[in-house]
This record gives sequence, structure tokens and C-alpha cells, in this order.
Amino acid sequence: MANDQSKYAPTDRTRIRRYPARGTYDRATVHAILDEALVCHLAFAVGDQHQHQPTVLPTAFVRDDETIYVHGSAKNGLLSALAGGAPACVAVTLVDGLVLARSAFHHSMNYRSVVIFGAARELTGAEKARAFHLLVDKLSPGRSTQARPASEREMALTMVLAIPLEEVSAKVRRGGPIDDADDMALPVWAGVVPLALRAGAPVVDGVGLHQPPAVPAPLIEK
Amino acid sequence: MANDQSKYAPTDRTRIRRYPARGTYDRATVHAILDEALVCHLAFAVGDQHQHQPTVLPTAFVRDDETIYVHGSAKNGLLSALAGGAPACVAVTLVDGLVLARSAFHHSMNYRSVVIFGAARELTGAEKARAFHLLVDKLSPGRSTQARPASEREMALTMVLAIPLEEVSAKVRRGGPIDDADDMALPVWAGVVPLALRAGAPVVDGVGLHQPPAVPAPLIEK
Repeated sequence: MANDQSKYAPTDRTRIRRYPARGTYDRATVHAILDEALVCHLAFAVGDQHQHQPTVLPTAFVRDDETIYVHGSAKNGLLSALAGGAPACVAVTLVDGLVLARSAFHHSMNYRSVVIFGAARELTGAEKARAFHLLVDKLSPGRSTQARPASEREMALTMVLAIPLEEVSAKVRRGGPIDDADDMALPVWAGVVPLALRAGAPVVDGVGLHQPPAVPAPLIEK
Repeated sequence: MANDQSKYAPTDRTRIRRYPARGTYDRATVHAILDEALVCHLAFAVGDQHQHQPTVLPTAFVRDDETIYVHGSAKNGLLSALAGGAPACVAVTLVDGLVLARSAFHHSMNYRSVVIFGAARELTGAEKARAFHLLVDKLSPGRSTQARPASEREMALTMVLAIPLEEVSAKVRRGGPIDDADDMALPVWAGVVPLALRAGAPVVDGVGLHQPPAVPAPLIEK
């Protein structure tokens, strides 16, 4: 399967050990999760060899083909440490439902998640500008052509990092509870409470235009 | 402020450096965020002194006073490493809105997040049973008294870890875009698209009871 271009090649760090049937290395599945999620959780270890202090922070991100971009203040010490090539790990999680089983033990959640291992690279010039546009467009499609573009000074205040999608896995749980056969007749409601992140009506700032913005498709109630 | 019992004491690791006005150490704010969120992102560094490989994974959790509990398979190597006292960092994030500004640079998100630094401790006996009940009840209030209780074997298959709320900070962004004065007259829609995780109608598993389960209050449309 190592030559199957539709999948990432599993590594020792990305091989799914718990519930391997829920694991996938399928690029299309990974891309869809990354494109729907608004926030990633970015982890890195700081400190010297005597102190492996992990830190994890939420941040906006966007996927561009086989790369994700994150951004922040150029003065951000943690992003600067990452830009220096420190090993990073990124998790992206969508919660899709509460799974209520007949037994306490089999309670679960439905979810779609991606974990990425890699090192970040700081972007400059045209690459940086492109990533910045994509980050803005992720919040509202077409937005980067509507809002005032970033000035040179604003771009200098912003650090943009790229993390390649090379060492990547996804894990997906779908469907109802998986109860033991002996429990199926118990008088307990069992099933799934579906969950979804949904957009409400846009709230205009002050005296604004009346044309509301585009909202990313996954956030619109079906 | 170090003696103010309504707040966590900031440390070098939890002091908010970027947008400090958005940071808070208020226990009530932290508790509310932890009680609403279903998933945390748990980070830790593994490997020897030559390889500070961070790993971050999403997992269910629940708060109990000044502790959070996470659980997983007793065979989970990463949880076992954490139970051994490896330093951990936990991030919990609620995404509340897309903030669309008149300038690309001032685009943002509304969010409420908590970051916790600490080491985990494995629970046993009555403490473990209590944590397990709370984890189940978080998915649906009262559920731990309705579903079949975990057997001794099922409890042995489950590892429950406690992480104390000692080194904790929260960060909250609310409200509309903060545009430059020069941009206020630009013909660009500006405002907020509110976002919320919402529960849909429960989907019963097979031929089940007709009484639907309780759904956690924050997930119910107001």
C-alpha cells in the first residue's frame, strides 16, 4: 500500500493502535476533516533536555493541498520556537454525536479527527501572502477580495507557518452504540444525539452594509 | 492577587502574553468553559532526552471541582506514559463566532479557551468509580444511573486519570471586529457570524425505548 497515492504512508507515530478499524490514512478523508474544522490544536515541547514541557494551543488554520498554514503575531514566542523547526504535533477534531449505550462502559462519541506530525517552516513573500488570503477566505469564502488587503506593516506583524501533510492519520467513529448481546434487552434508551457546529444569523457591526457575508458551507444547517 | 481564592495564581507558563486583556484566571470562567466543552486536547512529550516529540490527542473529559478526569483503555500506551507522571498540557476550546472585519488583518474568531499545565495521576477504587460516573453523566445528565453499571472486568479495562486544576488560564474573545478608524467607512460588511455546537433530534438505536435521553443544556438551541 506504500505506493497508493490516495493514502498517506503510516509511520510508527501515526499507526492507529486503539480501534484500528476506525483509523484511516485516506487523503480525501483527511482533507475533508481539515477543510471543515475551523481550529486546530498545535502542540510542541519547549525547554531543555531536562524539561520536556509540552504546550498545546488552539489556533485557526487552513489547508492548501498537502500543507496546512497557521498564523499569529510575529512577536509570539511559541510560534517563533516552532518556526525554528521544533517538532510539532497538530490535532483537528470534529465532534459529531453523543453515543448513548445500554451499558455505561460502551458510551462513546462520534467524531472525526486528524493528527499530523511534522515541523513548521516560516513563510515569506508570495507564499506568505497566499497563505494569509486562504486563512481569511476560510472564515468567509471570497472575503480576501472584499476586505482591505493587509498593508506591508500588517504583514510584517504577522508570522505564517506551514506544516506539511506527510505524517498524517485520521480516526473516525460513526453510527450507533455497540452494546454487548446480553445488554440489548435492557430497558435503557440507546442511540445517538447528533451534534454539529452551526452558524446563526450574522450580526452586523454598527451601521453596516446590508448584504450579509458568505458562510462556510459546513456551518449552514442542512 | 495571589490570595484571591476566586482566581488561579498565574505562573510563568500560564501568564497570557498575547492580548493580555483577553486572559483571565477566574475560576468560575474556567469552570464554565470546562463544563460546556465535550472534548479536550491532551498533549505530552514522549521519547528520550534527544527527542522531545510532542503528541496531542482529543479525548472526552469531565471536571469535578478542581480536577479534570480523562479515561481510555488500560492498554493505551500514551495514557500509561501520562499516568507515569510525564508533564502534560491540556487545551479546551469553544468556538463562538467568525469575526469579519473591514480589513483582512483584523479578521478573527470569538472563542473561549482554557489551558492547563500539570501531571496526571491514575485513579483506583472509589475515586475511579466516581470519575467514571461523571464521565458518563457528562454525555447525558443522569445517565450513569440508567445504563448498566460497568462490571469489574470493564473497570479493569479502563484507565482513569486525574489532572489537578492548579496551573490554569483562560482566554476569551467576545464581540465585534476591532477595525482601524481609517477603515470604518469602507464598503465591506463587518460583524460576527455566531457559531454554536448544537444537538439534533436523538436517533434511537434499533427498536428502542421511546423516552429520549437528557441532552446537556449548552447543546440545546436557545
